[in-house]
Amino acid sequence: MRIPVIVRGLGLDERERQELRDAAGPGLELRFPADGEPVGFGDVGAVIGRISDAELAAAPALRWIHLWTAGADYAFTPGLAARPDITLTASVGNGAIGLAEHAVLLLLLLDRGGWHWARAQREHRWDPAMHGELAGRTLGLVGLGHAGRHLAGIARGLGLRILATRRTPVETPEVDALYPPERVAEMLAECDAVVVTAPLTPQTRGMLGEAEFRAMKPTAYYVNVSRGEVADELALERALLEGWIAGAGLDAHHVEPLPAGSPLWDLPNVIVTPHNGSTTRQSRRRSFDTAAGNLRRFAAGTPLATVVDREAGY
Amino acid sequence: MRIPVIVRGLGLDERERQELRDAAGPGLELRFPADGEPVGFGDVGAVIGRISDAELAAAPALRWIHLWTAGADYAFTPGLAARPDITLTASVGNGAIGLAEHAVLLLLLLDRGGWHWARAQREHRWDPAMHGELAGRTLGLVGLGHAGRHLAGIARGLGLRILATRRTPVETPEVDALYPPERVAEMLAECDAVVVTAPLTPQTRGMLGEAEFRAMKPTAYYVNVSRGEVADELALERALLEGWIAGAGLDAHHVEPLPAGSPLWDLPNVIVTPHNGSTTRQSRRRSFDTAAGNLRRFAAGTPLATVVDREAGY
Repeated sequence: MRIPVIVRGLGLDERERQELRDAAGPGLELRFPADGEPVGFGDVGAVIGRISDAELAAAPALRWIHLWTAGADYAFTPGLAARPDITLTASVGNGAIGLAEHAVLLLLLLDRGGWHWARAQREHRWDPAMHGELAGRTLGLVGLGHAGRHLAGIARGLGLRILATRRTPVETPEVDALYPPERVAEMLAECDAVVVTAPLTPQTRGMLGEAEFRAMKPTAYYVNVSRGEVADELALERALLEGWIAGAGLDAHHVEPLPAGSPLWDLPNVIVTPHNGSTTRQSRRRSFDTAAGNLRRFAAGTPLATVVDREAGY
Repeated sequence: MRIPVIVRGLGLDERERQELRDAAGPGLELRFPADGEPVGFGDVGAVIGRISDAELAAAPALRWIHLWTAGADYAFTPGLAARPDITLTASVGNGAIGLAEHAVLLLLLLDRGGWHWARAQREHRWDPAMHGELAGRTLGLVGLGHAGRHLAGIARGLGLRILATRRTPVETPEVDALYPPERVAEMLAECDAVVVTAPLTPQTRGMLGEAEFRAMKPTAYYVNVSRGEVADELALERALLEGWIAGAGLDAHHVEPLPAGSPLWDLPNVIVTPHNGSTTRQSRRRSFDTAAGNLRRFAAGTPLATVVDREAGY
């Protein structure tokens, strides 16, 4: 009797499906339901991709859920909380490079006048403008996981001073100074640019509020490439509208897609991208490889990798 | 009898003029003619800023010209060639950081779909797209002076493999492999991205022609942040129109301003910026400091710094 495994999402082609079947081996039966196709969960042992609470309730044999994404915040539903017997794994670290590179793009764009040159090119207009340099300035990282550490390495090459705050105050050679989360406002006051790379957890939700944005320099840039909800939405909008800070580069938003009526779209000092920083061919492949590796482990009955810590939230 | 020194350009304010007077000391008389104001050159000993051949011919006492720019190519006129008694100095290295950061911006934009997100933001459109990552790819630097070496440091942080070609084949720890200029096509064939940072000299003019662009990968990006004339204009346009390469980020152009009728403005795989990479507040200040330091040396009769090698052309 083979254990059924449901695999959904990522737009797998037939060759990739076969790679997963090969990784799973003869003991597992991989099922690839089409979008919207009804799925029976009665005997399903594992799901790769998202699963709703209604489906969870109908899946008594489920022991493992694997997420294609690095962040797991959206999976912490009441349904999952009721099922401590299920191991949750995620594609931890798969987006780090893409997010770090995106943060650098947003910082450089902000420092060089936003989309100014895009407009000028569209209009065939030669319109140089004085701008800044990142070198020599101070960068603050909110969160220092895979993305934050890769970004720190790039920032080192750019010649930035690097401050960071993280939950676990371990020695981190990539940065010049580490601040505990309760001293984040002190760090922000030092920074010319702040980048949020933290996961969304009960501890990080809303950790940047009015006090934190008011602590920032009026010349500082704010960039968020992980989760919008780490900041208080209203405080961020006021900071941008009232000039508490100089501008923002936002790939992560409070509501996604960002509603067409959001004031952020039109603010001249805001760059909006559609939660697209880590949507790279390479991160997709890393997600795939993480899933394949865990399928192999699940089939062999060995411990799964990149297990999400339900307490920590990532 | 004080030696007159003409200072033009850079839009100096009164405080900066006073700084230069303080640097020059009592033996020099700094003159700051307004734009278009007629200037007598008969007794002028030095010029900071540009000088025409007609002015040069009328300046028998001139012994020193200092350029606010890092590149000196435009100063090599017949008039200057006729005056080996004049020392030419430039603001060597002043633009390196700005150019390197601009090259990174252009590379990230090219790799992430150009101005796609600018258009989408303007239209309040949530339109994510799959893109690439720079990490793990191969970067080729054409020229490895101040800008090239700073860029190599950033590229190291980004996780790129770094190849480079330079005139003087000295040991360069910043790069993984160094190619002599005559083997540049061999280097280009290896690269996923190529950045020109070389000065314009008789040796570099047109060094990238049809053979070189055809040697590049069809997936490769071409970026030029120093001087357009290092490439053959027609070959570059054909490379972009006919798909020999994937795209280009051009801050330096053959004719500047880029003519409004140039096909480059509208090519979807081309990013045009208006020779603006190093127009930073910091590079302006470094130019100023270089000029002030040389004024001090000129007044003291000690050897000038950042002297341009007329043979090498930079």
